[in-house]
Amino acid sequence: MMEKKIIYLDNAATTKPYNDVVERFLCCQQQYFNPSALYQQANDGAIAIKNAKRSILKALHAPDGDNLYFTSGGTESDNWAIFATKKPKGSRIIVGEGEHDAVIAPAKELEMQGYDVCFAPVKQDGSIDEEKFAELVNENVSFVSIMHVSNETGAINNIAKLVKIVKAKSPKAIFHSDGVQAFGKTKVNLRTLGVDLYSISAHKIHGLKGIGALYVKKGTSLKPYLFGGGQEGGMRSGTENLPMICAFEEAVRINQSNFDKNYSKKMQFMEIFKSKLIEQLPSTAIISSNDGVPNILTVAFEIIRGEVLLHSLEKHGILVGIGSACSSHRESRFKKLLGLDDLHRDGIVRFSIGDDCDENDIQFVVEKIVEEIKVLKDFVRK
Amino acid sequence: MMEKKIIYLDNAATTKPYNDVVERFLCCQQQYFNPSALYQQANDGAIAIKNAKRSILKALHAPDGDNLYFTSGGTESDNWAIFATKKPKGSRIIVGEGEHDAVIAPAKELEMQGYDVCFAPVKQDGSIDEEKFAELVNENVSFVSIMHVSNETGAINNIAKLVKIVKAKSPKAIFHSDGVQAFGKTKVNLRTLGVDLYSISAHKIHGLKGIGALYVKKGTSLKPYLFGGGQEGGMRSGTENLPMICAFEEAVRINQSNFDKNYSKKMQFMEIFKSKLIEQLPSTAIISSNDGVPNILTVAFEIIRGEVLLHSLEKHGILVGIGSACSSHRESRFKKLLGLDDLHRDGIVRFSIGDDCDENDIQFVVEKIVEEIKVLKDFVRK
Repeated sequence: MMEKKIIYLDNAATTKPYNDVVERFLCCQQQYFNPSALYQQANDGAIAIKNAKRSILKALHAPDGDNLYFTSGGTESDNWAIFATKKPKGSRIIVGEGEHDAVIAPAKELEMQGYDVCFAPVKQDGSIDEEKFAELVNENVSFVSIMHVSNETGAINNIAKLVKIVKAKSPKAIFHSDGVQAFGKTKVNLRTLGVDLYSISAHKIHGLKGIGALYVKKGTSLKPYLFGGGQEGGMRSGTENLPMICAFEEAVRINQSNFDKNYSKKMQFMEIFKSKLIEQLPSTAIISSNDGVPNILTVAFEIIRGEVLLHSLEKHGILVGIGSACSSHRESRFKKLLGLDDLHRDGIVRFSIGDDCDENDIQFVVEKIVEEIKVLKDFVRK
Repeated sequence: MMEKKIIYLDNAATTKPYNDVVERFLCCQQQYFNPSALYQQANDGAIAIKNAKRSILKALHAPDGDNLYFTSGGTESDNWAIFATKKPKGSRIIVGEGEHDAVIAPAKELEMQGYDVCFAPVKQDGSIDEEKFAELVNENVSFVSIMHVSNETGAINNIAKLVKIVKAKSPKAIFHSDGVQAFGKTKVNLRTLGVDLYSISAHKIHGLKGIGALYVKKGTSLKPYLFGGGQEGGMRSGTENLPMICAFEEAVRINQSNFDKNYSKKMQFMEIFKSKLIEQLPSTAIISSNDGVPNILTVAFEIIRGEVLLHSLEKHGILVGIGSACSSHRESRFKKLLGLDDLHRDGIVRFSIGDDCDENDIQFVVEKIVEEIKVLKDFVRK
């Protein structure tokens, strides 16, 4: 029996690692030594880690003297930023209403600890409502976390502007941005953004799972979150994971070298896909705005439940997400935020493509969506 | 030029992954899907993770109904256990004086937060002084962390006995044991040990770096330490790392299938090595006791500095550790604890072997130690 071809359109959840990333990881298995030991082999490892750090900071356009610490991924980076920054008890903390759960859940912990936690509203495309955000900012703000790109819709927030709004009223406030869906998807320039902390992850850009990093601007008051052997300058303990770090560097290198080419490819894929969808199913609400990242298109189909369509498409080898409900653990918080009408509220589907997207798949995908929706609607009407 | 043969005797720091572990990791790259997504491929991943968990719990001889959560490694497991357990403010916390820094450093944080943190003394072989430990235990004890096997000397603590001492005086106290140096090195039976929490790590048993786990006895009051998407039953958020988890399972499988054979092999290696060392250098103090794990032999050479000998041996391709000062980050806390005389205090060297140890190397290693010590002593005397 021939294996069914998989058309993977859930790249905002995770991506397939590049072959060269896996290859680099394999090569590094020869360098299994503890990079903190005292012999030469260990020192070679420590140098490789330093170089990887430098490459990634460069790809982020970070100012000289700023730092980057490797973590186990985006969730650890976000938790670290939120829990280990200096925040006077009772001070105000602002996080976006549409943040990833790795920010929302820690923020709710801080709320229980007595902090004045405010959730900044998002607009219909999933981006922060800047006016409403500004109204929440006062001189008591000690910490802000606003994602650079929404994992739900691909909307890009104007982080530089939000940083300025915060620093004008509360110069000592620390600004963290979850850049997990931004880095490698849109051009990230930390010099322009002006954030104090920025989270990134490898497995969203065809790297391996289990490695991420937290960028820390020079002078930012941050304690460790994992204490121990004193690795990473005492900031993040645990045996340094040389093979994973080098594989991360490789993913970043490949991403950056092909950035413009892949960006155009994804842009073109999504434009054709979107126009075909609207043409065939004009009742579909397009949630993602035109100025978001090109790799995510989130829509709400009429009458149909996203989860049901997901399973219908699965039969054809087409894998999609349904926003944060793309997780089997909980109902989506997100769909409540978008102000969709009753006919569309449950119909959210997130299509997200990777560097390996293929325009030739579009026709098939749209056909199957139309076909399955027809079946499902017939079923609903009966 | 022929590459110099490496004789790696620093396996307590980290080990070379088994080929089959790397192979399994590679295979799993095809299952790159997010195990928490809703399509079948994701579900297959979730099942693989569940199976890995079951295998590892079985290898630990954990009672039915107990749980295990995957983490990024031993450091995260230890930090989680220490920071996220329920402990009344001001209550007593006991940790071993000779614990790994991943326990000592978090304990010092708790001390600063106002807990009554006591450090239980160790004996000369690095094991807990049980009498002095018992004196520290009272009804105010809320949390105890004692390592199962010392990373410095290989000494095995009688955890079952210590648990009984604690629970007799303070039945609700939570007992954590860092099992990173025990699991796969000595037979671990969690049914007999009776601990509430137990940390393990893959890269100490020829698995990959970046994956570990925390065992949690049913009913133990533990909060998450990384909050977010709700993976691992809400206990440890972050995209589940299927390839690393399956590679961990593979390392455990190989370890358990060859346990007895490898245990005897390591025992024999160390007996010969130790007797040859004593024969050639009778002034050497043997720190590791005979009833510790067979893979670690820690000694203190006379007059010589451990670090200097480490570098001398390195020239011959022999890589050794010098206890927690095997880390380049800090001076060893440990050497102060052992009550060594002035002639031996700085001469600690830790020899630790893996499953790949080769008896044929012993002669060469001892020869080089003797040769280098002769040179160094001559130098000292001048």
